[in-house]
Amino acid sequence: MSNIRRFAPDARGDFRWEAVDTLRYKQEGSAPFKDITRQVLFAPADQATELRYFEIAAGGYSTLERHEHTHAVLVLRGSGTVQLGRETHAIGENDLVSIDPLTWHQFRATSNGPLGFLCLVSKERDRPQLPSEDERAALESR
Amino acid sequence: MSNIRRFAPDARGDFRWEAVDTLRYKQEGSAPFKDITRQVLFAPADQATELRYFEIAAGGYSTLERHEHTHAVLVLRGSGTVQLGRETHAIGENDLVSIDPLTWHQFRATSNGPLGFLCLVSKERDRPQLPSEDERAALESR
Repeated sequence: MSNIRRFAPDARGDFRWEAVDTLRYKQEGSAPFKDITRQVLFAPADQATELRYFEIAAGGYSTLERHEHTHAVLVLRGSGTVQLGRETHAIGENDLVSIDPLTWHQFRATSNGPLGFLCLVSKERDRPQLPSEDERAALESR
Repeated sequence: MSNIRRFAPDARGDFRWEAVDTLRYKQEGSAPFKDITRQVLFAPADQATELRYFEIAAGGYSTLERHEHTHAVLVLRGSGTVQLGRETHAIGENDLVSIDPLTWHQFRATSNGPLGFLCLVSKERDRPQLPSEDERAALESR
């Protein structure tokens, strides 16, 4: 059924929509992410793709990971950084980020406010890989 | 190659991005659209989908059409209306619009400013159909 789902930010101003579930990741000391939510905005039946919205709270970050599938990202709210391999780039509203297969990547919000972004992926995709200790050390050496 | 393409609005504030071509539709008296541009933001090689950005200038509108493929739309800028079958709905920033197969639809900007929206479609899709005179009359009768 064709429909409109209204933008309905919560009392804190965090981005929410009618009839869209918000998944809040578990927060654990050892978890390789911090303060991040995920909402699937679209997964059309006739399309092989999903459009998700991720929101990282101030000071939070996504998992440092890589995978065969690509990400296509548009920043919808706030600013922060994205690590692509050994480079880190500042990003802000409406910037576009293309992430190639097997590229290590991590998003971070600034300490001042949230970073929210759309992320387009194939519905069928491989599982993320996490870096080994050696790989992590190599990424951090400049 | 992973990359960042910066948001780079033009002197009028219309939404543009680095390294993204803007297609301005021909303006003809008989054309069933008015004052609309299209930019393909993402068409990832491993994904069967494209994310496009359409911007309709104040007072402009898209073609009234239908097709088998679905549209998944997120309003990025401004406000306006969308016709879905015989219903017309007001839409504003960050609202989500899902358009089912064979649903007549048309987007309009208000007279006060532009309406800009993201539109997700399959790369392989059928051509739009235009309404016959009878179909158009039926859509307009309330």
